[in-house]
Amino acid sequence: MIVYGRNVAKEILKNNKKIDKIIIQEDFNDNSIISLIEKRKIEPIRITKKEFSRFDKYSHQGIILYVEDFKYSELEEFIDDENAKIVILDHLEDPHNLGAIIRTCEAAGINGIILPKDRSVSVNSTVMKTSAGALENVKIALVTNLNQTIKKLKDKGFWIVGTDMENSVDYREIDYSGKIALVIGSEGFGMSESIRKSCDFVARIPMNGKINSLNASVAAGIMIYEVIRSNK
Amino acid sequence: MIVYGRNVAKEILKNNKKIDKIIIQEDFNDNSIISLIEKRKIEPIRITKKEFSRFDKYSHQGIILYVEDFKYSELEEFIDDENAKIVILDHLEDPHNLGAIIRTCEAAGINGIILPKDRSVSVNSTVMKTSAGALENVKIALVTNLNQTIKKLKDKGFWIVGTDMENSVDYREIDYSGKIALVIGSEGFGMSESIRKSCDFVARIPMNGKINSLNASVAAGIMIYEVIRSNK
Repeated sequence: MIVYGRNVAKEILKNNKKIDKIIIQEDFNDNSIISLIEKRKIEPIRITKKEFSRFDKYSHQGIILYVEDFKYSELEEFIDDENAKIVILDHLEDPHNLGAIIRTCEAAGINGIILPKDRSVSVNSTVMKTSAGALENVKIALVTNLNQTIKKLKDKGFWIVGTDMENSVDYREIDYSGKIALVIGSEGFGMSESIRKSCDFVARIPMNGKINSLNASVAAGIMIYEVIRSNK
Repeated sequence: MIVYGRNVAKEILKNNKKIDKIIIQEDFNDNSIISLIEKRKIEPIRITKKEFSRFDKYSHQGIILYVEDFKYSELEEFIDDENAKIVILDHLEDPHNLGAIIRTCEAAGINGIILPKDRSVSVNSTVMKTSAGALENVKIALVTNLNQTIKKLKDKGFWIVGTDMENSVDYREIDYSGKIALVIGSEGFGMSESIRKSCDFVARIPMNGKINSLNASVAAGIMIYEVIRSNK
């Protein structure tokens, strides 16, 4: 994966992520980044501004990193724990939200995250940046068919908990003990109808205002911490 | 306030926010926005690309709106309710986080938000955009001295609840009944030392991972929903 710009470069240099190559523009002079590069004992490739111009459609700020692609996990790696709590993202669109949700899952100790392969944000460089290092400690499985995956999870003893404002119960009234798969819908459209049908419970975060729209990663955070509440 | 670009223009046109003037570039042809402008019965000012160029340092996408500045509230407007829950943002820096927290406060039914005047993000056009209309339904007071404000809140019967990972108790073990002022620290540095000293309780969201860093608006969301949990 190629990532562009100073912020994400800094994050990656600080983490232990493997870096294949660093290209910087000849006049690059951000000393905090240069000293991070030196600490990692990598020799950056300096090229002229003219040579660099082929990357000008990206917001590169004079630095580009070639890093190892994110390594997805297999579903089987995180669904066996008898108390497993996992998160299914049903066609989430915004990489910033995915990054923030990955951070929450890491902090909450969620066993794994499931992402559909199609029509969903995947782990790109923005996600890498906004997840602030948490990515390396979270298991994420990509699946082709969410409905089949949910069927498999049910066979494995998971309760499927969806989230929606309509036809749902207060999220505080659900028993989250045992194996739980929490489904978070997309920012604009919520859960798919077919996924909704296979939920054992649908939870609602009560809202008392007029606009009543939570940011997707905030809503996910409130739900995730509720799900692990019964765990120690 | 002047705001730039299609997304924020759309949001503002959909809300009831007062618009003084709309300037569009002669070739502006986003029909969904044009029909929103027509619905609001505003005659936009069309100017040439050359005239528009003076705004080129902003990401304007051919549209600029002059809107009413955000109207801050007085502290006294939202601290009298005997069960008031309010949020103090101790030098938050990121406007996206402020926008998301405003949405959460609106949805949760928080009585009001307190922001310090200096070294803090204020309600700018990014906040207006990310708060997705919630801004119009939330009371925000700007104060000169947070420490003095907290003293005043204590005199009014508020319990001050801070948030921090160190020297703190599990957030689920605190009694949030009565008047509560929840303090959220800045993204990088947490709460100021002087504010921390005046807290009656300091709450910690338990974390089970290795990185353990929640996005500021996610952490605020989890805390805010915990504070209002005892209500109703």
